[in-house]
Amino acid sequence: MTQTGKQIFTTLDAGGTLTVEVGEAPVPTPGPSQVLVKMEAAPINPSDLALLFSAADLENAEYSPGKIVAQMPEPFLTGQKGRHGQRLPVGNEGAGTVIAAGESDMAQALVGQRVACVPGNAFGQYCVAEAMMCLPIGELSSAEGASAFVNPMTALGFVETAKMEGHEAIIHLAAASNLGQMLNRICLEDGMKLVNIVRKAEQVELLKAQGAEHVVNSSDPDFMKQLRSAVDATGAFLGFDPIGGGTNTDACLKAMEQVASSRMSEYSRYGSNQDKKMYMYGRLDLGPTILTPSYGLQWTVSGWLLTPFLQKAGMETVVRMRQRVQAGLTTTFASHYKAHVSLEQMLEKDAALDYRAMRTGEKYLVTPWG
Amino acid sequence: MTQTGKQIFTTLDAGGTLTVEVGEAPVPTPGPSQVLVKMEAAPINPSDLALLFSAADLENAEYSPGKIVAQMPEPFLTGQKGRHGQRLPVGNEGAGTVIAAGESDMAQALVGQRVACVPGNAFGQYCVAEAMMCLPIGELSSAEGASAFVNPMTALGFVETAKMEGHEAIIHLAAASNLGQMLNRICLEDGMKLVNIVRKAEQVELLKAQGAEHVVNSSDPDFMKQLRSAVDATGAFLGFDPIGGGTNTDACLKAMEQVASSRMSEYSRYGSNQDKKMYMYGRLDLGPTILTPSYGLQWTVSGWLLTPFLQKAGMETVVRMRQRVQAGLTTTFASHYKAHVSLEQMLEKDAALDYRAMRTGEKYLVTPWG
Repeated sequence: MTQTGKQIFTTLDAGGTLTVEVGEAPVPTPGPSQVLVKMEAAPINPSDLALLFSAADLENAEYSPGKIVAQMPEPFLTGQKGRHGQRLPVGNEGAGTVIAAGESDMAQALVGQRVACVPGNAFGQYCVAEAMMCLPIGELSSAEGASAFVNPMTALGFVETAKMEGHEAIIHLAAASNLGQMLNRICLEDGMKLVNIVRKAEQVELLKAQGAEHVVNSSDPDFMKQLRSAVDATGAFLGFDPIGGGTNTDACLKAMEQVASSRMSEYSRYGSNQDKKMYMYGRLDLGPTILTPSYGLQWTVSGWLLTPFLQKAGMETVVRMRQRVQAGLTTTFASHYKAHVSLEQMLEKDAALDYRAMRTGEKYLVTPWG
Repeated sequence: MTQTGKQIFTTLDAGGTLTVEVGEAPVPTPGPSQVLVKMEAAPINPSDLALLFSAADLENAEYSPGKIVAQMPEPFLTGQKGRHGQRLPVGNEGAGTVIAAGESDMAQALVGQRVACVPGNAFGQYCVAEAMMCLPIGELSSAEGASAFVNPMTALGFVETAKMEGHEAIIHLAAASNLGQMLNRICLEDGMKLVNIVRKAEQVELLKAQGAEHVVNSSDPDFMKQLRSAVDATGAFLGFDPIGGGTNTDACLKAMEQVASSRMSEYSRYGSNQDKKMYMYGRLDLGPTILTPSYGLQWTVSGWLLTPFLQKAGMETVVRMRQRVQAGLTTTFASHYKAHVSLEQMLEKDAALDYRAMRTGEKYLVTPWG
């Protein structure tokens, strides 16, 4: 075994220069409850991009082999004061082969197996991961197991959240994404009604071909009418929005209120007494979120993050969710990738601009050994 | 007793014309559990204005004795479809003398007493109210007892909400209002730390003279610095905003996050793991609410309304709150009025434009008998 492995690092200095580069990192030694994983595949998720590039100007950056140097605009430079000067590894999740382990039985039992894991530095050749958090993927390839955590647990988390809060239907925005298609499959399996909102006619077709009943296109001139009909048909007063900026969440709350009002027998100056809730689980659009005074005061907009949700849900629920993911990795929870890139290719201009655009259905997979 | 009494009505027709007028209404007969109140004083609260005028153009309205005819702009015309064509009485709360009662003991016991009540048509000479909801005010005048419900229960409701959700400090916006001054007195009594946000230097002085420790002025150039210091000193990660539109709630969430981040030992791309929550309890500004991507995803913005809160809090809490209000009507829960107006004076142009502006500390009291 070599003493070091390649690893992607991102560094933002206080002057506003962001350096992203392929560096070398010592091969770590696993602690008693940990395993050493030779990483073979890792997806580039939106949450990785927030750390990797944030809002840096990649269009006008300097590109050299294995290195990007870009400028970070305000307010994002000041907003990330906490990371100034720190050289940070990147990569939430991935899959690979366990090549060494700490002394615990659980860790030792994984030696030689292929596992999905959540090391936090998955864009690298070697990672240490907690054995308890690893998911053995058996005969599957690392590419098939690379996205076993973030998207599957998030999509399942939405359905669990809806059930915990007493809802029988969900609205989902940017619904043609990998995550959105996964959520559609889960909802079909569980009988949870789903209103899919997409931006293009071909995305409507894609989801309908996968069995989705309610798909509305926000680019259509009668979008609000479509949305109201779908909310009325499903009773969806809970939604999940990965976009954040703009008027998407506002449109959903408006449609919910219009449906709720139409069901009221008497006028109320306070609006309907129907609870309306939108969770924001991402910020694909970094522009401001706009909330208009169109739906009374019986509503909530709240951030949704996987880790706090899992803590709240408790170990029993998490174990049940993980078992379901493990059983359905190539079916319900399958991910699709537009391209496979090495660590060096990941930092080439064309690739970086392409995956940074986070277009629906165009996810990249990093293969740290080329 | 005459067969009818004067009453303010508001009617919005589908064409966009709003008519607000002093009309005549039959004197109602109380049901078994109800009382008939000769109304002597009723405050004009922001929640009344939302029904009375909404967003109508009062500047260019037609004024005649006891009548205003104004135009309602979009989107407020369509947004209030539910009330089109309905002639609605107005006035949440007030005080007066019980002149008749239904047969129940509780109702009969109130005959001849002066009470505060919540009839929904308080801008009128006669109202029917539930005996159980009436608060006997003893030797106090109706002017002293007129605001015994909305502001006191709302201000107490904020402190109850904070305690229920495990907070020891609150941020309050537009904090020099009648409600804000009341909240300051309650917080001082209860040892709940309070960050008061106001817009003018004289409002800072006003609240400091009433014992407020943390008062920040949003018009000062170093407002955000003042706000961060106050959040840091108090640990206020919960706030109440009656303004709604604009960037007030955003500024509070930003300050909370900056304080929480400065307390973190390690950088997180997801922001701090501190829960941050802002309740919007009004819409003094009908412009859009702006939420920027400056505080991660561990936050909630939610509407707050008195009635759903009281339902959630339960009867025992509500009874305790009412007793406290009754005991402190001229001290902790005292309200102040800029002017007293009759029903006719209420519909004169100068008065309507003045109280509709909802300027801090300039509340009007309606005296239906002149």
